[in-house]
Amino acid sequence: MDNVRLGIAGMGVMGEMHAAYLRKGDVKRVELTAVCDSDQSRLANYSDIKTFADTADMVRSGEIDALLIATPHYSHTTLGIDALEQGLHVLVEKPISVHKADCERLIAAHTNPKQVFAAMFNMRTGPAFQKIKMLVDEGHLGEIVRTNWTATHWFRPEAYYASGGWRATWKGEGGGVLLNQCPHQLDLFIWLFGMPSRVHGFCGFGARHNIEVEDQVTAYLEYPNGATGVFIAGTGEAPGTNRLEVAADAGKVVYENDRLTFTRNEVPTSTFTKTSKKMFSRPDFWNVEIPVGGVGGQHAEITQNFVDAILDGVPLTAPAEEGIKSVELANAIIYSELKGKPVDLPLDGAEYEAELQRLIDESPRS
Amino acid sequence: MDNVRLGIAGMGVMGEMHAAYLRKGDVKRVELTAVCDSDQSRLANYSDIKTFADTADMVRSGEIDALLIATPHYSHTTLGIDALEQGLHVLVEKPISVHKADCERLIAAHTNPKQVFAAMFNMRTGPAFQKIKMLVDEGHLGEIVRTNWTATHWFRPEAYYASGGWRATWKGEGGGVLLNQCPHQLDLFIWLFGMPSRVHGFCGFGARHNIEVEDQVTAYLEYPNGATGVFIAGTGEAPGTNRLEVAADAGKVVYENDRLTFTRNEVPTSTFTKTSKKMFSRPDFWNVEIPVGGVGGQHAEITQNFVDAILDGVPLTAPAEEGIKSVELANAIIYSELKGKPVDLPLDGAEYEAELQRLIDESPRS
Repeated sequence: MDNVRLGIAGMGVMGEMHAAYLRKGDVKRVELTAVCDSDQSRLANYSDIKTFADTADMVRSGEIDALLIATPHYSHTTLGIDALEQGLHVLVEKPISVHKADCERLIAAHTNPKQVFAAMFNMRTGPAFQKIKMLVDEGHLGEIVRTNWTATHWFRPEAYYASGGWRATWKGEGGGVLLNQCPHQLDLFIWLFGMPSRVHGFCGFGARHNIEVEDQVTAYLEYPNGATGVFIAGTGEAPGTNRLEVAADAGKVVYENDRLTFTRNEVPTSTFTKTSKKMFSRPDFWNVEIPVGGVGGQHAEITQNFVDAILDGVPLTAPAEEGIKSVELANAIIYSELKGKPVDLPLDGAEYEAELQRLIDESPRS
Repeated sequence: MDNVRLGIAGMGVMGEMHAAYLRKGDVKRVELTAVCDSDQSRLANYSDIKTFADTADMVRSGEIDALLIATPHYSHTTLGIDALEQGLHVLVEKPISVHKADCERLIAAHTNPKQVFAAMFNMRTGPAFQKIKMLVDEGHLGEIVRTNWTATHWFRPEAYYASGGWRATWKGEGGGVLLNQCPHQLDLFIWLFGMPSRVHGFCGFGARHNIEVEDQVTAYLEYPNGATGVFIAGTGEAPGTNRLEVAADAGKVVYENDRLTFTRNEVPTSTFTKTSKKMFSRPDFWNVEIPVGGVGGQHAEITQNFVDAILDGVPLTAPAEEGIKSVELANAIIYSELKGKPVDLPLDGAEYEAELQRLIDESPRS
């Protein structure tokens, strides 16, 4: 194969965006050969390629080698399983599914290692996150002591929630800010610092809007190495905050307002604390500024990586299998609030699915 | 009375510091007439004034009208009660006591409104905190939505804890970073934003040092108006963070690195969210920088205010009665961790005192 023939399922905001950069030629060795949406009006601009009303038909049409899934979240599971079973390569938008059990079903369908299965975690291509990943993976930070991400920059007015009856409902989205707005931050948080072992979740359901799902969240996280973490999210604050802070043995990293700073200790804290003889001493440090211009390749880079993985076998930036983690963490935060107690990971996916079903069944908005 | 005759109990680091600015004349209409310490060597520099080995003797000597208590924390209660009962005006270092029940005993001894009873919360005089107080009290912020103070700038090496057997023990200090390093931050947090109604405390006891008390703390706070808060403290991080952030209806205030910024919404969030017709709109805002040069009058200003209250009846910047709040919050955070569940305020002071006594009884360091 010299070129990958790609189809997009779901021509809403995200599907259109993907089609636009593909048609501009931003991704090499790929051809957009088909698009699909149950709403015919969304297909009007694609008369030069094949169009479908049903994804199952597109998957079986012989027109595509690979499928990009950009449909509403709940359908990712069924569409993804079908496409994998039909032998296609699959690139799925975030979140890969709405709850952990669905993620497991979807991932279980990926049995052939020759099929490439990736997730659209485009923010992993951001220069700042690439640099933080390098700092962690190459040991520049040493052991992590504390993580903190405040992601309350997702303000939404009531008009947003009023724009679709499915929005911000248990049935329509399976959650609020954690499932819709924050999957990228949750993915990055885990990609960079690993999974916590215990989650204390505190959610306000409709705390700042007339909705039934969480729009105000604080989670306290415990990690296997004794590190602690806080994740804060919400759609009710303006202007809100987007600030990632990591305290580690070698110093502190802060990413905020497009600036990445590393306050680097000359001596690791763990060494200094044992060797210093002075009561009120502390390690000397350097103020390091790490340039992180631009936003990186984003969606086009992830799609290019997907294509390169199909054609050349290069490693994936964001394997779909990793997409279960951010969903599991989101589920665990909500579950902890619902149960009024901490949740140990791994989360019991079946238990959470039953709880979510109860919320759907009891909701007047279902 | 034209001048207040002041005595200081406890001539350690803090007592010496108070004596120094008093002798320099930084406080008007006060005279340092006596000092007291059980360690005679600490009195050598004060041969020009009366010196005592026992505070009870100084209190009854007729040499002082007012007492400044700068002794180890546990003794604040007994010394304060005695001085109040003997009719003296009292200024007590922070924390006013180690646990809530002791605070109540101390405050109960203040029955005569003509006696001035103040606490050394000198950080209330800081220009940044004065400005934030003004922003809150004058309504510039509107309703508070979320508070966050990360106070992990209190790094201490092992040498600090090894310097005194009483340090960082339940018996010697009644706690760790919350009782020794953070009383000012806790006081300011409450002074500015009020008491939470529920506290979820997560403490690591000796997480980063060879000590038995808390040196790593995260607390999740719920306020009566539905606001949420996070307070993070520790002595194990270097360089650590000292950052106060407040999200409110009118915008966001951040105080960090001696800069006070107010991101002010042109329209309050609560109005905008209801009136905006656009799905992805958010309030326009102004970036406001509030000058906060210098550190304010600090200890000398609090002592001057104490003297002025005695002589002229001016209102106190920090009435001792308010000192119970930061102790109660510190106690509640520790108690929540010990019990593994949230603590509703007000805290039961007797219950906590019994718990603290159990910790003391069971400690090998007592």
